[in-house]
Amino acid sequence: MRTDVLIKEGERVDDLHRKGYVIIQDPKRFCFGVDAVILSGFARVKKGEKVLDLGTGTGILPILLEGRTLGSHFTGLEIQPESVEMARRSVALNELEEKVEIVEGDIKETAAIFGGSVFDVVTSNPPYMNEGGGLQNPSGPKAIARHEVLCTLEDVVKGAAKVLRPGGRFYMVHRPHRLTDIICTLRQYGLEPKRLRFVHSFVDKAPSMVLVEAGRGGKPMVKVEPPLVIYKAPGEYTDEIYDIYYGEGQA
Amino acid sequence: MRTDVLIKEGERVDDLHRKGYVIIQDPKRFCFGVDAVILSGFARVKKGEKVLDLGTGTGILPILLEGRTLGSHFTGLEIQPESVEMARRSVALNELEEKVEIVEGDIKETAAIFGGSVFDVVTSNPPYMNEGGGLQNPSGPKAIARHEVLCTLEDVVKGAAKVLRPGGRFYMVHRPHRLTDIICTLRQYGLEPKRLRFVHSFVDKAPSMVLVEAGRGGKPMVKVEPPLVIYKAPGEYTDEIYDIYYGEGQA
Repeated sequence: MRTDVLIKEGERVDDLHRKGYVIIQDPKRFCFGVDAVILSGFARVKKGEKVLDLGTGTGILPILLEGRTLGSHFTGLEIQPESVEMARRSVALNELEEKVEIVEGDIKETAAIFGGSVFDVVTSNPPYMNEGGGLQNPSGPKAIARHEVLCTLEDVVKGAAKVLRPGGRFYMVHRPHRLTDIICTLRQYGLEPKRLRFVHSFVDKAPSMVLVEAGRGGKPMVKVEPPLVIYKAPGEYTDEIYDIYYGEGQA
Repeated sequence: MRTDVLIKEGERVDDLHRKGYVIIQDPKRFCFGVDAVILSGFARVKKGEKVLDLGTGTGILPILLEGRTLGSHFTGLEIQPESVEMARRSVALNELEEKVEIVEGDIKETAAIFGGSVFDVVTSNPPYMNEGGGLQNPSGPKAIARHEVLCTLEDVVKGAAKVLRPGGRFYMVHRPHRLTDIICTLRQYGLEPKRLRFVHSFVDKAPSMVLVEAGRGGKPMVKVEPPLVIYKAPGEYTDEIYDIYYGEGQA
């Protein structure tokens, strides 16, 4: 790890428990949650594949995926300049400049920025909320990360569909209450759902998240996987979640 | 229970553990499974509501729903004359002629048979399989019950959408691997998914069935419920499944 990278006031440096990697976060802006971590465990990246993360924020997904897979290159697209700058410092801190690139830009311009059919895998942990009203501060970084202020589900899916090669795979984590929108939008843009996994805080509770794999093209048949359960007791992770945080990964 | 109803050779009379009701089945044709029972537990029928079951087979769903809800009338539509005749004998055996009617007809003709916007609730346990090839006997009653030989998912959804009143509810049990087709077809015909529940033989296994509630009209927001688990140990039902089989119902 390099030591000449600036950490600004109010920022913190968190250990990712993987290859010694760390990430710079600012609690006033946005800190990654269990959703980013389980998406990094759900997404399959094969040796040599090129990966794009849409709306990368702190760069958590490209850095985690570089750490746990044998993909050859990881790009994160992010619209907020302050997040781009902070994510680039995390990349530098981990000495990953050769493998991870953070690009500043709008998800709605994905195809114009990267061109068509250039990635093997696209990932996204997009804003979940489509309720426009009631936001205290719709231009704040937390609102932008959580609500569809700057991009909608459709923008994300459309962008992913254009830059994926035929047969390429799209991975997303989202909220179960948006499932109809998710599935219909994916199919509308030619990304056929292939795997679904619901994430439950406890095994007898309704799911709080859903993980989706969709393929560019392919037959309409989806595999719904066993429930992914986060806690076996209050505050105590299940073995599977513990393994996603601390295990070997796909590398 | 009446005793003057004919039971034919090869048929058996099974106890439904509900109000003393029974059902006539012929193992050579088709016997109801746990899917029909859990659909009867998942479907909500309010006092005084009128219910239609599409592809009713033995009449299991109308009879179970009459037993566990306060709905005012239950109709079963069935295309196979032998099944219609057998289901009518089950209705007579339970002395339910005033409450349950079995109509012979094609799901593709649902709206022509019943008219538009006439039911509060539609249920269906349709054929699951859309693989056309490989059937040993595509005209046999088991093939017709299990494979989309005489009607497709789209036929069922289209029929339900036409005969449901605005705000009416559609309940279906199906296979998870068809989830994309199910959700997109429902939305296409104006039936917005409202509740989804996945059914798992064991809590750590992939689901084998999915229960769906859709509303005619309404906002696009779906509630995915906690997993419905069938067995707590091999051969031993969970309390919830036991309660669906033997509990009080909604009445």
